[in-house]
Amino acid sequence: MAVVGGGPIGLATAWRCATRGMRVTVYDPEPGSGSSGVAAGMLAPVAEAYFGEEESTRLMTESAARWPGFAAELVELSELDIGYRTEGTLVVGLTPDDLAEARRLWSYQQGLGLPITPLRPAQLRDREPLLAPGVRGGAHAPDDHQVDPRRLVAALRVAAAKAGVSFVPTTVTDLSAIPEPVVVVAAGCGTASLTGLPVRPVKGQILRLRAPGGGPPGFRHVIRGYADSRSVYLVPRADGEVVVGATVEERTDPTVTAGAVLDLLRAAADLVPELVEYELVEARVGWRPGTPDNAPILGPLPGRPTVVVATGHYRHGILLAPVTAVLIAELLATGVPAPVLGSFLPERFMTVA
Amino acid sequence: MAVVGGGPIGLATAWRCATRGMRVTVYDPEPGSGSSGVAAGMLAPVAEAYFGEEESTRLMTESAARWPGFAAELVELSELDIGYRTEGTLVVGLTPDDLAEARRLWSYQQGLGLPITPLRPAQLRDREPLLAPGVRGGAHAPDDHQVDPRRLVAALRVAAAKAGVSFVPTTVTDLSAIPEPVVVVAAGCGTASLTGLPVRPVKGQILRLRAPGGGPPGFRHVIRGYADSRSVYLVPRADGEVVVGATVEERTDPTVTAGAVLDLLRAAADLVPELVEYELVEARVGWRPGTPDNAPILGPLPGRPTVVVATGHYRHGILLAPVTAVLIAELLATGVPAPVLGSFLPERFMTVA
Repeated sequence: MAVVGGGPIGLATAWRCATRGMRVTVYDPEPGSGSSGVAAGMLAPVAEAYFGEEESTRLMTESAARWPGFAAELVELSELDIGYRTEGTLVVGLTPDDLAEARRLWSYQQGLGLPITPLRPAQLRDREPLLAPGVRGGAHAPDDHQVDPRRLVAALRVAAAKAGVSFVPTTVTDLSAIPEPVVVVAAGCGTASLTGLPVRPVKGQILRLRAPGGGPPGFRHVIRGYADSRSVYLVPRADGEVVVGATVEERTDPTVTAGAVLDLLRAAADLVPELVEYELVEARVGWRPGTPDNAPILGPLPGRPTVVVATGHYRHGILLAPVTAVLIAELLATGVPAPVLGSFLPERFMTVA
Repeated sequence: MAVVGGGPIGLATAWRCATRGMRVTVYDPEPGSGSSGVAAGMLAPVAEAYFGEEESTRLMTESAARWPGFAAELVELSELDIGYRTEGTLVVGLTPDDLAEARRLWSYQQGLGLPITPLRPAQLRDREPLLAPGVRGGAHAPDDHQVDPRRLVAALRVAAAKAGVSFVPTTVTDLSAIPEPVVVVAAGCGTASLTGLPVRPVKGQILRLRAPGGGPPGFRHVIRGYADSRSVYLVPRADGEVVVGATVEERTDPTVTAGAVLDLLRAAADLVPELVEYELVEARVGWRPGTPDNAPILGPLPGRPTVVVATGHYRHGILLAPVTAVLIAELLATGVPAPVLGSFLPERFMTVA
């Protein structure tokens, strides 16, 4: 079988398929060069559970439950650190309006039975003393973890290769050019031109800061914040990096704009003032593979059972990699889609050719 | 004779000396690689005239008067565009407090007889419609122009070479290693270790934006602004670039900090909101050669007439290049310092060895 696309979805799927005894070739001119190199790596099934997306939330929760085992297996096999951290996420609101906005969302999340606990300002600062004194309140999502996507891809390449996966460094522009009889298309935004599926790029601008002095950042939780109506997340890594993300723009241009950098830095500094002393290392643009219903597209193309799609993960590709890989490997091994795939099949956007 | 340092001061001096018939060698491992590659290129003798710096202001005014001829000669000889623009500078204040701060300074400048004319908000917006509606007032300094320092250095290298200047691409660490009998030290911050003079690096962080669509920026004047107590300048170039500067920090580290980028972008966007759509192309650090009295150091070392210093121009090296070059060339040709050099001689910081 072939996997088109060497991002986290394609690599994890290739690895899982190879582990089940399949012969797998990954086609990608430069694995990990797409949106995974820009992504923050939040594994946040709870704080990212939105109104009206219950099916996706279930899939995210299931994938989150698989992450500890997935990470442990990957680190053991690859012998590489992937920056997996389990301190959890603090959701915080700067102003009363921001807090009301955040509370509306976490009340919904609590209603779904998801683990998220409101905290008073003093409790927030007990957990993260660097939070701005003005922060009005928030909540703790203990199951919302993080991983470093660049390290993840490096480890997945090693693990896949050790499991017997081959790599062909070419760009696939036509699926009929692939010799393998079965193809998994995990090409992110590129899936649209390969399959006709409605996957569109959703631009994101993101910053990488670095703590001064070579040490780790002064906070350990992922911080998901609302600051003067600006939404921002701060992801601290043990190696000193802090990711500040991200815009969500229905644009395809590759421009890092002054306004996006300003908004991200302002919200970040409003929530954690110490960040003004951090180095600004990088400002980058990536494109999330979006779909009309914000849910991923997983399963065979209608009428073409040898072409299986695994894309459209939008803002949740890193979180959803483990469950996607297992579900696609199971489908290929048994020929039968798991029931959970029912909501995510390509046929919701396509009729049989 | 030798010139140590191939920045604008060293190159202009070498060019002027060669034009007067001297045999000149410039020592620099990479001419133009110092602070001139970071500088904005404001030629602002008026808006940069500060309380208590009357001697420097006179020198800046004299150099500004030389700039049109200097630029014309340089462009003709080098056949290169140097981005010299004469629309003048608008000084603006965003809030009433900002305007009061700006007015205090321009009242002082008017008191010195310098050309600067207060403008009402409507008059400001007649000149630059993109100014934020909230800008409370300002002034026009018609003689405060601009040049592109990177283009300037490129042109000076060509002009100097055409005038017969030789270039030796090595770093000078000891003046005694130089074979030429007379040495001009124009090494910026590096002058301290070569001569013992108190020249210290003053860190500046600066941004370069680019107008969208490949066209020029939507404004033509240099804008010197005060926005919520933050000082910023915006320098629009015909090629689409906008320089946003600059911090003034008594630090020597090379770090681009999140806080500096935030402050510069916030002040810029407060004054010209359209800038949020511009691309953020570059964030860089440079070091101005500062002196204890903020004035340049020009002339022979006490007791060592064959070692002539031309440095310490602090924030005004681009503006002061023409007058510095002429004064140093005159000194070397005649052996007699011009009276104007009296305030800037090295001996104010040194005793005879």
